Amino acid sequence: MKFTKKKVVRFSHCDPAGIVFYPRYAELCNEMVEDWFSEGLGVSFHHLQERLRLSVPAVRLECEFISPSTYGDVLEFSLEVQELGKSSMTLAITARCGEQERVRFFLKIVLISLDSMRSVAIEGEWRDKFSAFLA
Amino acid sequence: MKFTKKKVVRFSHCDPAGIVFYPRYAELCNEMVEDWFSEGLGVSFHHLQERLRLSVPAVRLECEFISPSTYGDVLEFSLEVQELGKSSMTLAITARCGEQERVRFFLKIVLISLDSMRSVAIEGEWRDKFSAFLA
Amino acid sequence: MKFTKKKVVRFSHCDPAGIVFYPRYAELCNEMVEDWFSEGLGVSFHHLQERLRLSVPAVRLECEFISPSTYGDVLEFSLEVQELGKSSMTLAITARCGEQERVRFFLKIVLISLDSMRSVAIEGEWRDKFSAFLA
Amino acid sequence: MKFTKKKVVRFSHCDPAGIVFYPRYAELCNEMVEDWFSEGLGVSFHHLQERLRLSVPAVRLECEFISPSTYGDVLEFSLEVQELGKSSMTLAITARCGEQERVRFFLKIVLISLDSMRSVAIEGEWRDKFSAFLA
Repeated sequence: MKFTKKKVVRFSHCDPAGIVFYPRYAELCNEMVEDWFSEGLGVSFHHLQERLRLSVPAVRLECEFISPSTYGDVLEFSLEVQELGKSSMTLAITARCGEQERVRFFLKIVLISLDSMRSVAIEGEWRDKFSAFLA
Repeated sequence: MKFTKKKVVRFSHCDPAGIVFYPRYAELCNEMVEDWFSEGLGVSFHHLQERLRLSVPAVRLECEFISPSTYGDVLEFSLEVQELGKSSMTLAITARCGEQERVRFFLKIVLISLDSMRSVAIEGEWRDKFSAFLA
Repeated sequence: MKFTKKKVVRFSHCDPAGIVFYPRYAELCNEMVEDWFSEGLGVSFHHLQERLRLSVPAVRLECEFISPSTYGDVLEFSLEVQELGKSSMTLAITARCGEQERVRFFLKIVLISLDSMRSVAIEGEWRDKFSAFLA
Repeated sequence: MKFTKKKVVRFSHCDPAGIVFYPRYAELCNEMVEDWFSEGLGVSFHHLQERLRLSVPAVRLECEFISPSTYGDVLEFSLEVQELGKSSMTLAITARCGEQERVRFFLKIVLISLDSMRSVAIEGEWRDKFSAFLA
């Protein structure tokens, strides 16, 4: 299963050349993860962190900027779990506009406890939730 | 030769967990490239783009988030050219705080003409400037 | 007539205290203006600037931060034209979460030509469009 | 006494028109307050919040955008305390580039305890520190 979502490129995302400034793409990538948790997995970031005291910090990010986007473009984002490890996973996130691929992200996140600040094994219900989005 | 620069982690860079939010790290990475152009290469981004009509868009970015940083931390950034191609180059940028490595970036940029929006060969004086920072 | 829109407070909007960092509120304020142009007035920022060569830079902004917001909160934004001048206007934008008012903005923008970089009189169809949202 | 500091306008601060996007000015305004605390008052934001459990949230911000700035511009910021109340104060912050005034901020902040989330009276040593910067 893939988690998909449309996002509009904002004026605030664009630089003096009129195209998305790449650190803003990283913000959009993180928005997709946030939306996936709340809408795809049914657990909001707020609930995850403030109630469950869990978090998913990034340990690695790869971005390929394939073709530029400008404000007003509607990007179709798609997210799936490329690899599911013991306490980490790699998400593959892509964005296209119509037929054209714009950007591709590979984001490795790790499940940690905010109390111990250590990684936590992905088991039981969590493993089931994440596995449903395995590529 | 390496280009180095100290940067303070700002309150604005940090998320509710109190650590640098990774898209802000990408902004700091870009600041290093901007500083390298103006202070290391002697050509400001403004001069490059508005006068010379050249730009250096990112085509690929890899980030490894090694240990977290919080606001007030003074990061020592270091930049060198890892690979210099015909019209592109990969920059290796790292940041440490004291003895501890915090983040490592590999950023591939390409030299383009803002008039033709096409890549431009890195030759002559430009090649000399960039080569001085080859690892 | 009021232009209204719901917006989710993002993790990226929040600071180490877990509440919206006020410069991110200014971004949300600008998003409302952007949405108002494309959805309320029927002219996207991209069309306005790249085709019509017009822009609406801010000349003055007042913000009152009434109560804090955290990520996951759904804010109901509302925009109306408080005052419509010869070539400028003041927008009143508010955000509430349920019964609670969170933030209030008064943003003065001026209509300019991107070619002359001078202000342009708000007349004819533009005056009609803006007047429809007068408080 | 005024607290002054030079800041370079970054590529990341600018929008497709090539000028500072106003929410980024609000970030620069907050950077000035952060620098004032650490360099002018001798208490870093990190120490203030994580050790002393105090914070200075914004309750009101007024910005006047007088003339535009572009990346590469060196802005001379100046901060003073315009009004010092029982538990709040209004800071007047201006930025100029050479002879030209660019932006003017009036930021009202309130001293609060992060434990009680209530305002705290500005007394003793704190009152002395802030008073030194009264206009």
